[in-house]
Amino acid sequence: MPQVSPALSRRRSPSEILAPLARPLAGLERFIHAQCDAFEPGVADCARYVAGNQGKRLRPALGLLSARACDGRPLDEAEEPLLRACAIVEMVHIATLVHDDIMDGASLRRSRLTAGAKWGKEISVLLGDCLFAQALVLAASFPTPEVCRRVAGAANLVCTGEILQTQRRFDLKLSVEEYLRIIEMKTGALFALAAELGAQQGGANAERAAAFADFGRLLGTAYQVYDDCLDLVGAEKEIGKSLGADLREGKLTLPVLLLLREVQDSEHHLVSSILLNEHATGRALLLDFLRKHDAIRAAAQRAREILRQAASRLDRCPSTPAHQALAETVAYLDEEMAELK
Amino acid sequence: MPQVSPALSRRRSPSEILAPLARPLAGLERFIHAQCDAFEPGVADCARYVAGNQGKRLRPALGLLSARACDGRPLDEAEEPLLRACAIVEMVHIATLVHDDIMDGASLRRSRLTAGAKWGKEISVLLGDCLFAQALVLAASFPTPEVCRRVAGAANLVCTGEILQTQRRFDLKLSVEEYLRIIEMKTGALFALAAELGAQQGGANAERAAAFADFGRLLGTAYQVYDDCLDLVGAEKEIGKSLGADLREGKLTLPVLLLLREVQDSEHHLVSSILLNEHATGRALLLDFLRKHDAIRAAAQRAREILRQAASRLDRCPSTPAHQALAETVAYLDEEMAELK
Repeated sequence: MPQVSPALSRRRSPSEILAPLARPLAGLERFIHAQCDAFEPGVADCARYVAGNQGKRLRPALGLLSARACDGRPLDEAEEPLLRACAIVEMVHIATLVHDDIMDGASLRRSRLTAGAKWGKEISVLLGDCLFAQALVLAASFPTPEVCRRVAGAANLVCTGEILQTQRRFDLKLSVEEYLRIIEMKTGALFALAAELGAQQGGANAERAAAFADFGRLLGTAYQVYDDCLDLVGAEKEIGKSLGADLREGKLTLPVLLLLREVQDSEHHLVSSILLNEHATGRALLLDFLRKHDAIRAAAQRAREILRQAASRLDRCPSTPAHQALAETVAYLDEEMAELK
Repeated sequence: MPQVSPALSRRRSPSEILAPLARPLAGLERFIHAQCDAFEPGVADCARYVAGNQGKRLRPALGLLSARACDGRPLDEAEEPLLRACAIVEMVHIATLVHDDIMDGASLRRSRLTAGAKWGKEISVLLGDCLFAQALVLAASFPTPEVCRRVAGAANLVCTGEILQTQRRFDLKLSVEEYLRIIEMKTGALFALAAELGAQQGGANAERAAAFADFGRLLGTAYQVYDDCLDLVGAEKEIGKSLGADLREGKLTLPVLLLLREVQDSEHHLVSSILLNEHATGRALLLDFLRKHDAIRAAAQRAREILRQAASRLDRCPSTPAHQALAETVAYLDEEMAELK
């Protein structure tokens, strides 16, 4: 795990760690808002609504920190091309959320009506397309087609991961490796993109930019495992969404895949039938099994290993405030995961 | 109207006009097929299915002819970058069709099951996204970001046009100018892109490429008016789709917008109620009104004017077999439109 200096041994929350990014992140909001203004009036209102649903802006924060970890400049500085790169990643992310909500038939996201609930699925499909297209227009404003290639490639991976996940719903034969590959595409790809584009804007050479891409990919993958665990054992108010959604939708996540490998005979039969949504009280029953076989802890353990790999990618990075913030974020996540059971 | 040489005064069908493109268009099919193969196995099958639903390949044909009209090379020649540019445009088009079918809840396209009917809307939304993203990956393989910018910009326009169209369904206050602007975005943008990218690949300078973009935009707009007329008065077997779909979906097209300007008082009231889908026998009644007020012919006349503007954009083009084919296509469409009533 990355070294955390003694002065920081009191664990800081992500909002404390990321506080120095307040100014660049405010700039990011203005940038994204201005992009929405560029749409036709009827479309701009919709775009502002979905883009304004804040979210955690994890990917832009990762992009900003990656840039500053490479060039050592102060954390509260962010030049226009860097903000643009971060905005591109976030706009692709927002576009995928808009489409996700249509697919899930979700009516709420972060306590607000989804685009689909507000304007119907027709507008929402097209709105996601518009946001994605506008992100690519922005990507094409860089001097070389490299940014476009990376952005389009990452978007392709995200959608491919989601297609594979959808195709494998309720498929009890899904292996742990297949699951990890799917979430690496679905979530890791945009984290990788944010870190890579950020590093490039921070002047990283190809080797260092690739290391940051790897860091982002592994961090995103570990984060997705964590998120999948929370869907089973999180506190509803904390994570701001209804629990057990994956179970209802037939998404088999790491804890249940590990559980399936542990249980045998009649237990295997019962767990399988719960996962196939054949039990009204499925979630409570499943939680008993997950705890009996320590499957949540085993999944978190796997995520922590991935996190460790992520951290190792930044080993050769000079120690800067940004590097420290990345290391602290990793350490924070690691401790959160250590507490899961 | 463009001059058609005496030897060609017997009107040739589009398939005769475009016959010399058989080889490049076969190359295009192979190219698109190979792009589908590049997806993950589970996605590749879906992509091949929707991409293989042939369609008329109007946009690639326009791109090929535009290139050869600029460089004067034989019609049956198509170098790889030109095929790639044409494939990009067609892949964006296919992606929009996949999303269109979801929005319309359509179960058949060109007599085959739609992606939505085959795999559900989840997979279809993502499949459209994947195809679009892959088109952008291809666009980023050109040496400058210019192609990406154009492709993403055109995709943005297409989706914006579709959003505006969706928002204005059943809106009897939609003006003719607004309708024309919407279809210019929805259909004109990809025709413009095909012609412009084709011209660029044929070595056109900026001025000539812009003239081809205008030609494509106007041609696409006129074609969409024609298609909208056919939705009302076409023969079901000829156009391969069920008639009156626009009426059912509340899409107000040029003939009905022109009709609305002609009718008064009780007629206006009745036509309005038909357009708002308040009559079981709406389509038959509406056709009577359209014919009584000559509104189909008036719409076709407007489309022919747009076609004339399109043709004028190629006035300064040297006479080549490709230019001749474009002029003949325009003349063919013009005669088809002249026959509408």
